[in-house]
Amino acid sequence: AKNFNILVLPGDGIGPEVMAEAVKVLKVFETPQRKFELRQELIGGCSIDAHGKSVTEEVKQAALDSDAVLFAAVGGPKWDNQRRGLDGPEGGLLQLRKAMDIYANLRPCSSTSPSASIAKEFSPFKHDVIEGVDFVVVRENCGGAYFGRKVEEETYAMDEWGYSEAEIERVTRLSAEVALRHNPPWPLISLDKANVLASSRLWRRVVDKTMAAEYPQVKLVHQLADSASLILATNPRSLNGVILADNTFGDMISDQAGSIVGTLGVLPSASLNGLPGDKTLKTRPYGLYEPTHGSAPTIAGQNIANPVAMILCVALMFRYSFGMEDEAQRVEDAVRKVLDSGLRTPDLGGKAGTREVGDAIIYLL
Amino acid sequence: AKNFNILVLPGDGIGPEVMAEAVKVLKVFETPQRKFELRQELIGGCSIDAHGKSVTEEVKQAALDSDAVLFAAVGGPKWDNQRRGLDGPEGGLLQLRKAMDIYANLRPCSSTSPSASIAKEFSPFKHDVIEGVDFVVVRENCGGAYFGRKVEEETYAMDEWGYSEAEIERVTRLSAEVALRHNPPWPLISLDKANVLASSRLWRRVVDKTMAAEYPQVKLVHQLADSASLILATNPRSLNGVILADNTFGDMISDQAGSIVGTLGVLPSASLNGLPGDKTLKTRPYGLYEPTHGSAPTIAGQNIANPVAMILCVALMFRYSFGMEDEAQRVEDAVRKVLDSGLRTPDLGGKAGTREVGDAIIYLL
Ligand SMILES: CC(C)[C@H](C(=O)O)[C@@H](O)C(=O)O
Ligand SMILES: CC(C)[C@H](C(=O)O)[C@@H](O)C(=O)O
Repeated sequence: AKNFNILVLPGDGIGPEVMAEAVKVLKVFETPQRKFELRQELIGGCSIDAHGKSVTEEVKQAALDSDAVLFAAVGGPKWDNQRRGLDGPEGGLLQLRKAMDIYANLRPCSSTSPSASIAKEFSPFKHDVIEGVDFVVVRENCGGAYFGRKVEEETYAMDEWGYSEAEIERVTRLSAEVALRHNPPWPLISLDKANVLASSRLWRRVVDKTMAAEYPQVKLVHQLADSASLILATNPRSLNGVILADNTFGDMISDQAGSIVGTLGVLPSASLNGLPGDKTLKTRPYGLYEPTHGSAPTIAGQNIANPVAMILCVALMFRYSFGMEDEAQRVEDAVRKVLDSGLRTPDLGGKAGTREVGDAIIYLL
Repeated sequence: AKNFNILVLPGDGIGPEVMAEAVKVLKVFETPQRKFELRQELIGGCSIDAHGKSVTEEVKQAALDSDAVLFAAVGGPKWDNQRRGLDGPEGGLLQLRKAMDIYANLRPCSSTSPSASIAKEFSPFKHDVIEGVDFVVVRENCGGAYFGRKVEEETYAMDEWGYSEAEIERVTRLSAEVALRHNPPWPLISLDKANVLASSRLWRRVVDKTMAAEYPQVKLVHQLADSASLILATNPRSLNGVILADNTFGDMISDQAGSIVGTLGVLPSASLNGLPGDKTLKTRPYGLYEPTHGSAPTIAGQNIANPVAMILCVALMFRYSFGMEDEAQRVEDAVRKVLDSGLRTPDLGGKAGTREVGDAIIYLL
């Protein structure tokens, strides 16, 4: 028998509602041989209200003790002008990323399954532009300008945008492993501004070295980050593969990537500190799974929030943390069928409630 | 009689060809009362070949002595792996930006005139998505991670991403002045990552303060840079106005903005250290005008390069450096007519040569 410990962090706004559906889906996959032990905790605004901080040490430890974390969304106008950065609601997420050392944020983006019908209707792009688009953005998640030393004075402020060889190496390896899961292997497209930034020049050098030494079978392409943002909007298919970027460029590119499908409501993400079986891992592999949309406070509590992205997080968790590829695909297939059927929440032009969508997906599993 | 001194920098690749057409257009506007004195110099790869550096002190001084600079494009495979950063061909441009202190890079983007027919055919977006899009990106051009202190070691590299109050203030003012040139005034949409970066928090604070004190009539909106990159691809019309961003976010956003029209071949840019009449200017106002496309070495010398972006740079120079708004519009109207007629270079699906397009535009002026 196998038990998986899952930390459940519903957070703020629509977080609790969409998380409830994801948990329902998850439970369907319990068998006498496979149990999911859930522990629910606070993060973000609700944690600020209860404990005065966006994440407690106890919750960080719970994350480290878990096999995976399901995270919904944090923040809302209540905390907006009151606290910012590491002290604000999002700070809970940033601190958790750092504590778990989940250095790679994966955002799959595909105009085919499971979101083909949504992309067809909601993509701002002409059909032939997005046809056959299929890539994963891997964003470095624990370094760079986000976590560098900061200076914050009255008339001057500065963030150190730095990378070490080791930080670049590990996220390159993980990206290459993701590329190798495809048959034939996906190319690795690494973004940087090596024509301007010192950290980008190191980035390019380390990516080159790591790939040549360890992954000669994976095709490597370097692309300037600014051109990549144009290509992503004009010829996205040419970026099919694994798109690797540092924290800042990755933040921009992975949000922009949401435009292919046209809505963040169906896009999950995974933050990992390694893939199962990774021999360089010094801890157990951690994964945090999170929809790419926010906490949407204005529609919270009305049973109209779209639970699809959160439910697809369960599929990613099966795939990347539990090695349950078949079950991952079952979830994605059920989501596809429900989206295709038109049983959708209002953001996708439907009339279904959050719970109805969750129930329909479970029914079709 | 009024004489304008213009420094002409054709650079590398297709630079000389497209510059020749721009100069032809410019000459049409000479009258007995208005002369353009042209001085042509080397920059980029050709300057490396001739002088061992991408820009000489003499050329920098010539830029400072000019009323405006026309710059075409630099770089090519010949210099690619040989030199990088400030030493590479693009370094000539970066050094010139710094020497002239042209701290604001403007990129107009409109799905209406003069590129309406091009946008209709080449935009990757559905027609209703880009209909009525009309904005200018103002990118801070002389600060931030581009010009901060750098560390470049064997296993660690770092760029300081810093801003001073004064740097943010001046680019905010210039952006507000651009907003006020529209009737009714455009909104100012300022991008940052104030939820993460210290420099972004200063950015937001200074933009707020400057706008409240000096431009209360201009509507101010703050937008997180990552969301902005998604909005630019899903609902670009909602960004109509002046989009202000720091050097790094501005680099990403202004390249991405090229996707609205669908090709960089028709998009000019202006880099300014103030607008004419700016009372805070300590020097004469400088402007450098540059197409957003590159040097396209593979098609150089074949009379097939598209000269439109370079010719539209002449219009921007008239508008922003010489206060010749009527003449600017005449150039833009002639370009519109030629593009609408289908007389286009191969990149736009036509059969015309570089020189034919230039001649046609002149014919219709
Ligand atoms: C909320 C914010 C701190 C976060 C980030 O910038 O990393 C978000 O934009 C994201 O991409 O997950
Ligand atoms: C060539 C390069 C240094 C430059 C930049 O990043 O500023 C270019 O991308 C631009 O946007 O003008």
